[in-house]
Amino acid sequence: MARADGRSPDQLRPVTITRDWLAHAEGSVLVEFGGTKVLCAASVQDSVPRWRRGSGQGWITAEYAMLPRATNTRNDRESVRGKIGGRTHEISRLIGRSLRACVDYKALGENSIVIDCDVLQADGGTRTAAITGAYVALVDAVAWMRKRKMCGGDPLVDSVAAVSVGIVGSTALLDLCYTEDVAAETDMNVVMTGSGEFVEVQGTAEGKPFDRAALDVLLDLGAAGCAELTRLQRETLA
Amino acid sequence: MARADGRSPDQLRPVTITRDWLAHAEGSVLVEFGGTKVLCAASVQDSVPRWRRGSGQGWITAEYAMLPRATNTRNDRESVRGKIGGRTHEISRLIGRSLRACVDYKALGENSIVIDCDVLQADGGTRTAAITGAYVALVDAVAWMRKRKMCGGDPLVDSVAAVSVGIVGSTALLDLCYTEDVAAETDMNVVMTGSGEFVEVQGTAEGKPFDRAALDVLLDLGAAGCAELTRLQRETLA
Amino acid sequence: MARADGRSPDQLRPVTITRDWLAHAEGSVLVEFGGTKVLCAASVQDSVPRWRRGSGQGWITAEYAMLPRATNTRNDRESVRGKIGGRTHEISRLIGRSLRACVDYKALGENSIVIDCDVLQADGGTRTAAITGAYVALVDAVAWMRKRKMCGGDPLVDSVAAVSVGIVGSTALLDLCYTEDVAAETDMNVVMTGSGEFVEVQGTAEGKPFDRAALDVLLDLGAAGCAELTRLQRETLA
Amino acid sequence: MARADGRSPDQLRPVTITRDWLAHAEGSVLVEFGGTKVLCAASVQDSVPRWRRGSGQGWITAEYAMLPRATNTRNDRESVRGKIGGRTHEISRLIGRSLRACVDYKALGENSIVIDCDVLQADGGTRTAAITGAYVALVDAVAWMRKRKMCGGDPLVDSVAAVSVGIVGSTALLDLCYTEDVAAETDMNVVMTGSGEFVEVQGTAEGKPFDRAALDVLLDLGAAGCAELTRLQRETLA
Amino acid sequence: MARADGRSPDQLRPVTITRDWLAHAEGSVLVEFGGTKVLCAASVQDSVPRWRRGSGQGWITAEYAMLPRATNTRNDRESVRGKIGGRTHEISRLIGRSLRACVDYKALGENSIVIDCDVLQADGGTRTAAITGAYVALVDAVAWMRKRKMCGGDPLVDSVAAVSVGIVGSTALLDLCYTEDVAAETDMNVVMTGSGEFVEVQGTAEGKPFDRAALDVLLDLGAAGCAELTRLQRETLA
Amino acid sequence: MARADGRSPDQLRPVTITRDWLAHAEGSVLVEFGGTKVLCAASVQDSVPRWRRGSGQGWITAEYAMLPRATNTRNDRESVRGKIGGRTHEISRLIGRSLRACVDYKALGENSIVIDCDVLQADGGTRTAAITGAYVALVDAVAWMRKRKMCGGDPLVDSVAAVSVGIVGSTALLDLCYTEDVAAETDMNVVMTGSGEFVEVQGTAEGKPFDRAALDVLLDLGAAGCAELTRLQRETLA
Repeated sequence: MARADGRSPDQLRPVTITRDWLAHAEGSVLVEFGGTKVLCAASVQDSVPRWRRGSGQGWITAEYAMLPRATNTRNDRESVRGKIGGRTHEISRLIGRSLRACVDYKALGENSIVIDCDVLQADGGTRTAAITGAYVALVDAVAWMRKRKMCGGDPLVDSVAAVSVGIVGSTALLDLCYTEDVAAETDMNVVMTGSGEFVEVQGTAEGKPFDRAALDVLLDLGAAGCAELTRLQRETLA
Repeated sequence: MARADGRSPDQLRPVTITRDWLAHAEGSVLVEFGGTKVLCAASVQDSVPRWRRGSGQGWITAEYAMLPRATNTRNDRESVRGKIGGRTHEISRLIGRSLRACVDYKALGENSIVIDCDVLQADGGTRTAAITGAYVALVDAVAWMRKRKMCGGDPLVDSVAAVSVGIVGSTALLDLCYTEDVAAETDMNVVMTGSGEFVEVQGTAEGKPFDRAALDVLLDLGAAGCAELTRLQRETLA
Repeated sequence: MARADGRSPDQLRPVTITRDWLAHAEGSVLVEFGGTKVLCAASVQDSVPRWRRGSGQGWITAEYAMLPRATNTRNDRESVRGKIGGRTHEISRLIGRSLRACVDYKALGENSIVIDCDVLQADGGTRTAAITGAYVALVDAVAWMRKRKMCGGDPLVDSVAAVSVGIVGSTALLDLCYTEDVAAETDMNVVMTGSGEFVEVQGTAEGKPFDRAALDVLLDLGAAGCAELTRLQRETLA
Repeated sequence: MARADGRSPDQLRPVTITRDWLAHAEGSVLVEFGGTKVLCAASVQDSVPRWRRGSGQGWITAEYAMLPRATNTRNDRESVRGKIGGRTHEISRLIGRSLRACVDYKALGENSIVIDCDVLQADGGTRTAAITGAYVALVDAVAWMRKRKMCGGDPLVDSVAAVSVGIVGSTALLDLCYTEDVAAETDMNVVMTGSGEFVEVQGTAEGKPFDRAALDVLLDLGAAGCAELTRLQRETLA
Repeated sequence: MARADGRSPDQLRPVTITRDWLAHAEGSVLVEFGGTKVLCAASVQDSVPRWRRGSGQGWITAEYAMLPRATNTRNDRESVRGKIGGRTHEISRLIGRSLRACVDYKALGENSIVIDCDVLQADGGTRTAAITGAYVALVDAVAWMRKRKMCGGDPLVDSVAAVSVGIVGSTALLDLCYTEDVAAETDMNVVMTGSGEFVEVQGTAEGKPFDRAALDVLLDLGAAGCAELTRLQRETLA
Repeated sequence: MARADGRSPDQLRPVTITRDWLAHAEGSVLVEFGGTKVLCAASVQDSVPRWRRGSGQGWITAEYAMLPRATNTRNDRESVRGKIGGRTHEISRLIGRSLRACVDYKALGENSIVIDCDVLQADGGTRTAAITGAYVALVDAVAWMRKRKMCGGDPLVDSVAAVSVGIVGSTALLDLCYTEDVAAETDMNVVMTGSGEFVEVQGTAEGKPFDRAALDVLLDLGAAGCAELTRLQRETLA
């Protein structure tokens, strides 16, 4: 079964990570996974949420959103609707958890970093592109802090990257574009550290339930994809 | 390492599933996983959401919520705060997806079933208890419909059950209670069909990332737990 | 005119008050007036609202809500709609005022008790059942506080109970169930102290206005009902 | 005990009812009970709420609100806060119920009248002034409809007026101003028809509970006050 | 082209400014521009917004709103809809900016004045009437403060007034009423100080764009109207 | 007085208009005025708002928003706050009005175009950049419609562009960047058609009021700036 863009099943789309895309943010990245474009901005704040005060420890949080016309047809703005949808909430939480997995809160000191991931254009895999790009923006924000001696040591203990995998017509595919995502029977997002361990595994049977063998194939494919993305992050940051 | 309640690592808490707990709902269940008590009510509606109309197919959706004093300290009501939190959204969506995995929309006809899962008391595993109980309420609601000839065939193609697993102090544990959940380094929710396939796998590194071996152990443990819950569901429904 | 459940006009439905229904709350009661089931949870907080600080006095407040499927057809959640309806507000305020009538704020000290009354199943008289049950939960919460020496004396100066009365087809009835409530021309809620005085009287002509004679009959009937409920509260607490 | 403004205990404040205060509304009244000024506007709509359609019957509804500086210190606007408070909800519902008590829905036809009661200045008794003035605005709106042959007969079967009564320092007082209202131990709002029957009785123990004797005195006082207000309404409409 | 009310093109409608219309506010004015009636209430607060604290400077802010039946057909309340519309926001901001133009924040000290402008009846020019009346209410509130020695000097360095102008059928008209406003091709609001300088100029092509010559004519007309309103303000305050 | 970036007072910042920046939108432009970057997406919809149905005429509307980190310090998301701020509302309305000035609704047919203007990076003049870019996106969206024969003729009767002007330290400057904007005593936004007529003029005294001479200078400067932007739009579209 051929993929629409001619990729092999275990091949990523062209990935571009452009640093310093914004002038004001302490770290910023435009990350592209094929037609998916996410703008990641890391904002440093010299304070922490109320429940964290006095702990000597920092905090990382993330907000994900999509521009109304990132998609094929226009979506209403969540600000106009007056509430944030369930999908947005779910993805914001996933990104935040993923980034926190590579952070040493003590070394960060009582500072926060907020990562805004705004999808400018969507073609599948927006959450995994967001995590992969957000990590690079985070690195730049942390460097900015260290230059100003805001941290006592290196708050980054590992790196983090993410990719989607799925089964379409009984073939396991890496990094699904939108049309593949819609056709997938099973869809999984895999978030891994640079050292090859899992941070988050979310597999969902969209159509019919999947067995352990399929799960194993998807995990292998996801692990290989994350390793490749880790390599690209390192290249970008070199 | 002994568990607080004396269970072995691969043992479920006492599980009770009480059918017909409510007088008005077409299906209703009070499900208890140890100290966790969730009231599941299935409401039949002879209509479908707008985007589904004219398709000849039905729909299943779920809403999860917690009473303010289900937990150790009181939480503000989401109705008072005027918005639904991210965690609530995330769990409602998970329950809905899980139940839809065992439903044949065509056989359901253009009808909807809304499953309300209200946590009366929380002691860890509220979402997995909710899924496990909601399935039983769904069975009763479907029986109610079939008695009234609202369906053309059996809309239930399988059953669904869920359990949490996690690693606490390097031991893999089944069905974590609240104090275990808080102490877990890795936490996973496993949703499976009665025929032993996966519907949803969500593993999260709460503390440090986990490797493939740990993931495999947790999947085995979760699969065994779901099989036992499936047996209990059948017993209750017999 | 016979009542559907065979009661005499001045007879209460079977009333059950189950204490300690919840594990976490400082006081909790499941109160049942026939098919009406309300879960009342009293939460102790060692602080008071801002406007009360420094006064040396405590505060009692209440929140009333209904589960979506407490009723015959499903109601949308107020958390999903994003706002609290007028009826909910009105009843929450009534319960709060009623309970405050039996409390000595000074003896309570600068502590608050929040009473959550969640209707699990509705069959008329939910607000009067809530008040009657909430009082018992309040007693248990106050006992919990006194054991911890949080109060300087007994903050409870009396007890409080409530019942609905109404005129259906020219007969005055005590403790209306849902079908009677719908048929009532006049509907009244009576809240009284254990010492037989009025805390709140709310009479409403649903259909046609009522004269003073009817009002007098309803007040007599309500007073008798409250006296009987007071007796049941004492029995439960004994 | 002398009243601040020299009134006898059973005396109303000076009451003014000015018709046609607004140019656009089908009926409009500025009603003043002493320093309390409420602008009542009745808007005719040739439609009914969805649940009423096809019934051949009309509907009356009311909305109560207060300008931010109607009171001694400024209150935040409910539109700015983004939600309507419990007190506003409660009073809006009371006004609506009270007016509906004198309306024949069938004669009204499938039309609605919305009565807006906006408190321009508050000095106690805003809800009772609102009901008393709203009735007069309603009469004018109905006359407007009948001139246009929108009704099949007279939709007004009676009149309605309201007054507050209360016990201050053991004296029963009619039509409490703000300082008396604050000092009252018991506070009651009485809504009556022009023919002398009760539409709504709401008595609340603000401080200490009250006995049946006190209740009887307050009901007598309220009935006399409503009779006087009915006389003033008739005079205004003559 | 004759105007509906017989005015000449450069003539204001009858303007009335009634001071002390409300009992509680520190300054209050009912301002009428023909059929447009706006109630302006100035509330003094001995505090400033958070971002202003410690600056030794005061703040002036304004809120504009319309009663539901101020207009020809009833509008839903913004408090009921749960959000403030764009037009309301825009006008509130304009009024606030306009009033701030004549205030010396230092002389005001760390105090705020909130000006509520509530439109009781609308017939065009509600925002300009609001500004013109609000200034007079502000003067009275400042006098109230100075009597209490809350200010160190006179915080009012000038006066401010506003008027609408527009082109209807190629004639430039001053102070448009509602029917003229609807028919206008170009509509402009001019806010000027008593010393004849511009505070705000907002010209909008409602129908077809306008050239510089038209703009010049409108500015002249607006300047003359503001001068006349300034004279009326002085007369009122004398 | 030298400008920070060496521009002469009547010189625009470097302006770039990149068409087709997004893959999905019918028209899309990334417009840059120096450091200000706004992404404009035009979405075609084959329907009109309810109040417009059956008129045979189309509609154009706009929504303006800013990404949280478009500015020097991070702003909270309006979707998270649950409401749209006054400034956002005001600018969205301005953009919509400006674009509607060059559209023939009849030729557009019963279709709508929604223009989303999202500020990716802000350095002053975001609303004028948005209008200037949105017009180009609108042209592309209209071309897309005409190719599909959705319009009966050319709906664009003119072009529209906008620029800010202001007085900083007594010098009139064109196209203010953020630091100039903050320092400006008077600030004006001028929206003009390609044929040199005014669509909107909004001048505000930020510090001290301005006289007619200053207003005239600013209008001249704004007109020249808009003419230059019109030339750039034409070049881009050629």
